[in-house]
Amino acid sequence: MADPEDRAQAAAEAAGRHFAEHDLMAKTLGIVLEEVRPGYARARMTVRRDMSNAAGIGHGGATFTLADVVFGAACNSHNRLALAQNCNITFLAPVALGDDLVAEGREVSLQGRGGVYDIVVSNQDGMAVALFRGLSRQVGEPVVADAPVA
Amino acid sequence: MADPEDRAQAAAEAAGRHFAEHDLMAKTLGIVLEEVRPGYARARMTVRRDMSNAAGIGHGGATFTLADVVFGAACNSHNRLALAQNCNITFLAPVALGDDLVAEGREVSLQGRGGVYDIVVSNQDGMAVALFRGLSRQVGEPVVADAPVA
Amino acid sequence: MADPEDRAQAAAEAAGRHFAEHDLMAKTLGIVLEEVRPGYARARMTVRRDMSNAAGIGHGGATFTLADVVFGAACNSHNRLALAQNCNITFLAPVALGDDLVAEGREVSLQGRGGVYDIVVSNQDGMAVALFRGLSRQVGEPVVADAPVA
Amino acid sequence: MADPEDRAQAAAEAAGRHFAEHDLMAKTLGIVLEEVRPGYARARMTVRRDMSNAAGIGHGGATFTLADVVFGAACNSHNRLALAQNCNITFLAPVALGDDLVAEGREVSLQGRGGVYDIVVSNQDGMAVALFRGLSRQVGEPVVADAPVA
Repeated sequence: MADPEDRAQAAAEAAGRHFAEHDLMAKTLGIVLEEVRPGYARARMTVRRDMSNAAGIGHGGATFTLADVVFGAACNSHNRLALAQNCNITFLAPVALGDDLVAEGREVSLQGRGGVYDIVVSNQDGMAVALFRGLSRQVGEPVVADAPVA
Repeated sequence: MADPEDRAQAAAEAAGRHFAEHDLMAKTLGIVLEEVRPGYARARMTVRRDMSNAAGIGHGGATFTLADVVFGAACNSHNRLALAQNCNITFLAPVALGDDLVAEGREVSLQGRGGVYDIVVSNQDGMAVALFRGLSRQVGEPVVADAPVA
Repeated sequence: MADPEDRAQAAAEAAGRHFAEHDLMAKTLGIVLEEVRPGYARARMTVRRDMSNAAGIGHGGATFTLADVVFGAACNSHNRLALAQNCNITFLAPVALGDDLVAEGREVSLQGRGGVYDIVVSNQDGMAVALFRGLSRQVGEPVVADAPVA
Repeated sequence: MADPEDRAQAAAEAAGRHFAEHDLMAKTLGIVLEEVRPGYARARMTVRRDMSNAAGIGHGGATFTLADVVFGAACNSHNRLALAQNCNITFLAPVALGDDLVAEGREVSLQGRGGVYDIVVSNQDGMAVALFRGLSRQVGEPVVADAPVA
């Protein structure tokens, strides 16, 4: 695989498959990791009643987890293991039970081992309900040992 | 209830009972809200396998949710409904499956309707695994209608 | 001025002129507010020796202030007075003395009185050196009394 | 210097002297670094007219810089060069011209090379006006070459 773009895409797909299969918290919340490309990820979650808060609306912890799954997939998409250091989430609008949320994340910076990722969580009307910025640090080993590293 | 301290305590207990009973996401993750006092809350969670991430350790979304439950209880402890605006979490150390985490939160500022809360999440060895700062805004109605407001 | 777009632009220009004239800290650091449009602002600053830190490079406080000036102009660009609540800055790369920095800011959310603004600070090579996210709250009065409010 | 505490104190004092002497931005704003101990720093600043914003009160950039000077001194107090990665500041109350601000910072975590520091900025009435949390990363060289490293 001489083409760097192909290699990057293969790395992202291998890491994405690994995350989709092994992230059990995501499975607990019904989060589906739909797509992972180099520096990009997207996932969906339908807000169930067992994810509600005391006010009867979607829990901030569920919205955060959806965004965090996307962050994790995006910052590991080079098949270089990266750990979350800091996450900052701003809640823009309430989430209703039954809402179909989608989170999309993009790499906005990767300098050395430190990365910055912006994730937007939107509802089925396309309205942004939360903005998330995550800082990650690569630790020097691959996510999937027998896949390309980008 | 003429004593303001008694009133504040009664408000916190009423709000705390409401949160302990109605926060279904907390129940999903086995989070136990142990204590709510004016401007203070504490909760516990044992990290189960269904809360792990793709690396097989505790998911950041689970740790966040534990801290967020404490934040919610603390910022609503005056029995004035408050919404989370922004949460910032820094992950200090990995969380292992089976870890018994405790989160303690304190009000560090409440000026007008805006509050700032600091939550520390520690493991069973007393080691801090995450630091969380939450910003809230009161919206002008009680959490529990027939309880004192502080 | 019946056209809402014209009105919004006039509000932004009036607020922008007010900020360019009265922000004395910006003048102290030689920050030039170049453009203010509805929900947008851009400013420039050359990093002088008296803005250096103990390592002899640009001080984080100077980079922050440049971004904060843009944040202030963008969140007040509707000619509705808005206050900074929270600012989060991530430093991506060192800033050298003599660097010509430009900061561009955009409104990413304005729901009710609460706004979120993303500012990118770049150097003369177009390299991003800092990412800034600001949360603001409008307080219900105009910035410039005799100008349109948008 | 066999005593680790003496060594740590000597490292902090050497780093503190270096910062007090060479931080030119701090001098520009009249910031006085009063004390540096291991994992601790304190500085003062009087808010001058040339540090005001367009509303005629203290500029957020000046308050940030005061806190950042304390952050820098505290995270370098082991005489191991550390860089700011991320700073998060919450503004609690307005700062008036002429206010005498003091910022105190403490290390809340140092695991490996990553540190977390909490800084509180208060005015002459002891009222907190801003809360700042800084994340730093040590880069493996001393601040002052001929002083102890702690």
